[in-house]
Amino acid sequence: MSRTPPELARLVETVRPGLARMRDVLRRQVAEGSAAVSDMTEHVGRFQGKQLRGALVLLVGEATGNTTDEHPSVAAIVEMIHLATLVHDDILDGAKVRRRVACVNERWDNQVAVLLGDFLYARAFSLSTDLSSRLCSKLLAETTRKLCVGEIDQSARRYDFEMPQEIYESICAAKTASLYAAACELGARYPGGNEEVGRAMGAFGHAIGLAFQIVDDCLDVAGDEDVVGKSVGTDVEDGKVTLPVLYTYARADEQLRAEIRRIYTQPGLAKRARVLRETCSLDAGIEYAYDRARALVEQAQARLDRLAPGAARDALYGIAEFTLQRNW
Amino acid sequence: MSRTPPELARLVETVRPGLARMRDVLRRQVAEGSAAVSDMTEHVGRFQGKQLRGALVLLVGEATGNTTDEHPSVAAIVEMIHLATLVHDDILDGAKVRRRVACVNERWDNQVAVLLGDFLYARAFSLSTDLSSRLCSKLLAETTRKLCVGEIDQSARRYDFEMPQEIYESICAAKTASLYAAACELGARYPGGNEEVGRAMGAFGHAIGLAFQIVDDCLDVAGDEDVVGKSVGTDVEDGKVTLPVLYTYARADEQLRAEIRRIYTQPGLAKRARVLRETCSLDAGIEYAYDRARALVEQAQARLDRLAPGAARDALYGIAEFTLQRNW
Repeated sequence: MSRTPPELARLVETVRPGLARMRDVLRRQVAEGSAAVSDMTEHVGRFQGKQLRGALVLLVGEATGNTTDEHPSVAAIVEMIHLATLVHDDILDGAKVRRRVACVNERWDNQVAVLLGDFLYARAFSLSTDLSSRLCSKLLAETTRKLCVGEIDQSARRYDFEMPQEIYESICAAKTASLYAAACELGARYPGGNEEVGRAMGAFGHAIGLAFQIVDDCLDVAGDEDVVGKSVGTDVEDGKVTLPVLYTYARADEQLRAEIRRIYTQPGLAKRARVLRETCSLDAGIEYAYDRARALVEQAQARLDRLAPGAARDALYGIAEFTLQRNW
Repeated sequence: MSRTPPELARLVETVRPGLARMRDVLRRQVAEGSAAVSDMTEHVGRFQGKQLRGALVLLVGEATGNTTDEHPSVAAIVEMIHLATLVHDDILDGAKVRRRVACVNERWDNQVAVLLGDFLYARAFSLSTDLSSRLCSKLLAETTRKLCVGEIDQSARRYDFEMPQEIYESICAAKTASLYAAACELGARYPGGNEEVGRAMGAFGHAIGLAFQIVDDCLDVAGDEDVVGKSVGTDVEDGKVTLPVLYTYARADEQLRAEIRRIYTQPGLAKRARVLRETCSLDAGIEYAYDRARALVEQAQARLDRLAPGAARDALYGIAEFTLQRNW
């Protein structure tokens, strides 16, 4: 069932009991009396992925000396929100394969995928309102708003080949990094106080979330579906112009630019990402994007200097590094 | 802009200042820095409908002597959740016209409708976490879960012509009445305490919500689009077997049953609801359903006896009555 790569499993070893409790909370939360619902949530359980965001709540808690009995629940809530965005993303992206399990909207229809995502959001918020502190509800409701705004802005920027890198990054920050940042801030702060260390850990999460998204965008345009384990090439299909392409486009002559636009937009064209790779080298753009991700990872790692040395801090350092190495 | 029928406007007159504040909160909450988002939320503002659920928060507060400064915000949160369900329903139902304004998913695409609904949910939860009491967050997160489960169960029961009336009603209770019940319970209880009167007012909301849904289902199968002001016949299109049809089917001979099933399922058949009406009389089924709705309204009205006489109580009595009379 677990889709956790061996290296990541080693990194999160130090919070293994907390992760087990988090999974236990998750299992109980997605269980539902309705047979129709439990049939779906059982299916969803199988594409839960790495549970990296939940692990970050626990690891940051540990690394900052702020572990409470409620941290596994906070981690489960973060994972449920992530799961809800994945389910709704499958509608958005038209992705055909996610983590090698048929998507919800392939097995059922779009209607049900919308409702299942809504159900997961509602469960997450409901659980958060049962916690002793309101910090989790407050931070995650606000984060969910950011996630949506990021996705909507991204949708509005489709086929925008001249989007400035700052705009690209602000969209990635909203749609992806905000949940990493919230996970880390909650780990450091929940149930309250510790604002300064919370800000620092939020910045750590923000930087690795942004790096994660940039690497993800590189894999989508250049990756191999068998290795990555989910659909690749969907960004080009969906008109999303990501950093490696923005970089390539900015340095292309007018003829090549027209060709790139054609590959993105010509109706009925098959395997657009592959055609794009065969038409122009994306190597420089991908290198540029990885350099940017590397710089973000180093920024993130520098934030860890303030923490006491230990296994949890080492794990956070390793997870930041892992963001760049992953080929999944 | 207002779609409030004149009679309803008269009924809610007693909470007019609160409604104005509720609309003000709504306007500010759906405003968003992102141009892409505000373009959409502005559009959504135009199909807000009757705002009956928000008005119930205020009226029940008034009628139970429990009006606080935060009631208009609670009402706005209830309305935002309702608005989110409408936006996601438009994906679900494939409805072509809602309140005579093009649906979000007609002007934009399904992707964006999903995100806009998510954004509205997130805003609602975010605002609720800013209130002084957690009661609103708790009750509405739980209610949102019920709404989703009801919709999922309904989807699983499509084309179930032998569904017992209790199951039909339990689905209506979850997908519709739960938000009416929560609105009324919050009106009576927010920020806390008053559990007994809260339960009674919750039961009032539950009963009128259920009546509302039954009448809505009758209008969908028998109504005139020009009068109702939104798509009709979509339930038959979507395979939803509602009370008037369940009643008719249960009393039909095998030949007519086969005919009803054919009308629901034959690929490509146009105007299924009209064909259904022309094939068999739904009159007895509709009368039966209205009788049930009438009984629910009387149950609801009986709950009001415990309240002090006054304009707010009269308005609640009238709204319950209005549930049956509406032809919109």
